[in-house]
Amino acid sequence: MTNAATAEFLADLQDALPKGRFRAVKAGELDDPRGRHVGLAAVVATPHCVDEVSTIARLCHAAGVGIVPLGGGTGLVLGQVAHSGPAPVVISLERMTAIREVYPSENAMVVEAGAILHDVQAAAEAVDRLFPLSLASEGSCRIGGNLATNAGGLNVLRYGNTRDLCLGLEVVMADGTIWHGLKRLRKDNTGYDLKNLMIGSEGTLGIITAATLRLFARPSKTAAAVFVVEDPKSAIDLLAMAQATVGEGISAFELISGVGLDFLTETLPDLRQPFEVRPDWCVLIDLGVSAEAVPEEMLLALFEKALAAGLVSDGVISQSEAQRQEFWAVREHIPVGNRNIGSISSHDISIPVSRIPDFIPEGIAKLQALGDVRVNCFGHLGDGNLHYNVFPAKGLDRKDFDDIRAAVKKTVHDLTHAYEGSVSAEHGVGRLKVEDLERYQDPVKLAAMRAIKTALDPKGILNSGAVLRAAGAT
Amino acid sequence: MTNAATAEFLADLQDALPKGRFRAVKAGELDDPRGRHVGLAAVVATPHCVDEVSTIARLCHAAGVGIVPLGGGTGLVLGQVAHSGPAPVVISLERMTAIREVYPSENAMVVEAGAILHDVQAAAEAVDRLFPLSLASEGSCRIGGNLATNAGGLNVLRYGNTRDLCLGLEVVMADGTIWHGLKRLRKDNTGYDLKNLMIGSEGTLGIITAATLRLFARPSKTAAAVFVVEDPKSAIDLLAMAQATVGEGISAFELISGVGLDFLTETLPDLRQPFEVRPDWCVLIDLGVSAEAVPEEMLLALFEKALAAGLVSDGVISQSEAQRQEFWAVREHIPVGNRNIGSISSHDISIPVSRIPDFIPEGIAKLQALGDVRVNCFGHLGDGNLHYNVFPAKGLDRKDFDDIRAAVKKTVHDLTHAYEGSVSAEHGVGRLKVEDLERYQDPVKLAAMRAIKTALDPKGILNSGAVLRAAGAT
Repeated sequence: MTNAATAEFLADLQDALPKGRFRAVKAGELDDPRGRHVGLAAVVATPHCVDEVSTIARLCHAAGVGIVPLGGGTGLVLGQVAHSGPAPVVISLERMTAIREVYPSENAMVVEAGAILHDVQAAAEAVDRLFPLSLASEGSCRIGGNLATNAGGLNVLRYGNTRDLCLGLEVVMADGTIWHGLKRLRKDNTGYDLKNLMIGSEGTLGIITAATLRLFARPSKTAAAVFVVEDPKSAIDLLAMAQATVGEGISAFELISGVGLDFLTETLPDLRQPFEVRPDWCVLIDLGVSAEAVPEEMLLALFEKALAAGLVSDGVISQSEAQRQEFWAVREHIPVGNRNIGSISSHDISIPVSRIPDFIPEGIAKLQALGDVRVNCFGHLGDGNLHYNVFPAKGLDRKDFDDIRAAVKKTVHDLTHAYEGSVSAEHGVGRLKVEDLERYQDPVKLAAMRAIKTALDPKGILNSGAVLRAAGAT
Repeated sequence: MTNAATAEFLADLQDALPKGRFRAVKAGELDDPRGRHVGLAAVVATPHCVDEVSTIARLCHAAGVGIVPLGGGTGLVLGQVAHSGPAPVVISLERMTAIREVYPSENAMVVEAGAILHDVQAAAEAVDRLFPLSLASEGSCRIGGNLATNAGGLNVLRYGNTRDLCLGLEVVMADGTIWHGLKRLRKDNTGYDLKNLMIGSEGTLGIITAATLRLFARPSKTAAAVFVVEDPKSAIDLLAMAQATVGEGISAFELISGVGLDFLTETLPDLRQPFEVRPDWCVLIDLGVSAEAVPEEMLLALFEKALAAGLVSDGVISQSEAQRQEFWAVREHIPVGNRNIGSISSHDISIPVSRIPDFIPEGIAKLQALGDVRVNCFGHLGDGNLHYNVFPAKGLDRKDFDDIRAAVKKTVHDLTHAYEGSVSAEHGVGRLKVEDLERYQDPVKLAAMRAIKTALDPKGILNSGAVLRAAGAT
């Protein structure tokens, strides 16, 4: 267990740093976005540079006081919400937002951890490059948090997860020492992969203060299509056909269910949908290609081939950027429709792609045996990442399902595990899924994780209670 | 330090496994491919399955006897060559060569660590997929060794290093426990990235026994071109233009120097070269595209654009697969030419791409101040990975340079470090570069590496002396 921050400790901390590096908690900033808990903080530190982060860590380490790094606070698994135990020092990266350097000819940029994702994207665009990480909270999440949680998002199929977009890190270790690892090399085999160990460790092994990010050529031309498929199996066969036909240009391949479209019709009737007759399943395909290609023609060729093979029955191909945005608006409003309906339980899972067609109906049958529910299953099919969310049947209230909520979650997670899937595809473990990790993770990997945690943070001060149960906690 | 394997220990080991799991060392199999050292072995174990590897590790762990995992033995940095200290148990993966499962619709396959890289490529091709890892030793290296060293090769620009081609691992830990991590998920954020920690750890943190590998759609059409550029700066500008013009289809972008072509002319006069007048610098560009594209036209469009911009002065574009192979034969024979001439010192380095144009001539000037040498600088320009190899001037013998060899190496490595580069881009650290690692690696990262090593292998039995100096050794 970590120690409480005494008044003496806090005074020492203030003395060790320039003025103006501490502030009180702002209303709401430590609240879980889904409203389940409120985070504790002895104080919020707002360091301006890596050396100041180092100083804070060194003093906390000496005193055994906990540290919680804070980015944009948008995480959905309580990784940033320390809601029990002694109140920690919260280190907000809000004052470390610089884009330190941009190297267009190297397709690389160095940014501080507090930079807002949208600002990182804009800095890349300013030099005619693409930083492809894109997710719902991009206007407020910070890149350090994206790295700490290995965020996923919409373009993983083509560009990978956040870890695949990072070439180097600057990290303050538990004892305050600084790893200067901001290399911008594509190949570097000089020792263990500390970078990937830090990425996705959710602030429990080190505090990321800056990163070297990969940039990409901006696709010169983009186009999107929505194709109607009979079922998820057809969608997966279509994905394989698309990869062979227009492969290197596919930026996203998203599954949309009729249930999700119904939610939009029910709660957002003004949102324009691509088909008059609501399909049971459809996919959104986004292409981004270089100057010499014609994406609309590529999508048409794919459609004709897929129609001949019986994989699709209808489709629309964008003929303008506005139309492409219209298709994307449908996809992006699906979570809004979900919130409007109100879910009983939401799940961020991944399944081996070829097993998805069996998983989806088996899960629905098991859930409907528990109660009168609807499932909106949608998401990043190309990555096997499903948002498998459970709702009351039409006319019922989610409150009527309070007593089966735990059973719903366990049913989905048990089935996911049986299908060799993951119970946290892109959101992480945080404090919400510590028990799930203990239940489903390989025990040898868990033991290795605990050994690594002890090796790099022997006092257990870094984001105590996230990912792994705090030493001594039950 | 590890313990010597006593006769009693070896008898116990034999008793614990089925018959036929041990053999004597074969002539040459533990020799360094570059002839610098010969590896020691108390015995060579040839387990048939992960449980047998586990048994061996458990007994070695109990007795404190060292283990060296052996793949194809093609590594160039002595990672597989334990040439000092007590003779270890060498675990050869030669009997674990199965392609366990292939999942074409998931673009994934599960293979055992002893599978020869060429056989892995062939198994992918058999289901019309691509496993893109490709390197000179692919006919004899084993995938477990490729993973342990995070091998690079020719297609990193497009498909990444070996770590980017791996979805999951099965690993025997130092104490013999087995991590069953053969997931085939694209997104899985359930805990620390043990997979990437194992990849590139060169057998010092665990013994990789199987892996889930990523497959890709096979490009339907391929074409290659060789373009003459004035200097490395033009080559880098051409790379940026190529990424914007034909971006998503570029599989390789290789720099070739006139010195390398001279070596071919001198020692392989029958090899057909692409240009009558030997250029100072040229690049080989390889495109692999899907069915809807025409790679020859894409290369021609690039050439015309580059010619107009003054980036290229001449070029040839393949009009047949035979011609493409002819271009590649030139690139692939450059190391043969090097061997025929005989290098004073060879370096596997990477440099931030934008700094390469300054690095190359500065290095040559510094080296020529040491002696009358020629530099053949070639390699994977798209990755910033240069093979920067130093040779005697024409008419001189490499033996005349014995006294400056260490200075040559230090000059190249010091300059690489000053340019924020890596002294081991793709070959790893092994036992050859332990001192380089200590000299050039960030001390905080080194401390973290040592802590992780102790946490996962507290007795230091796994490939002792590779990557990190063995405890107690000087």
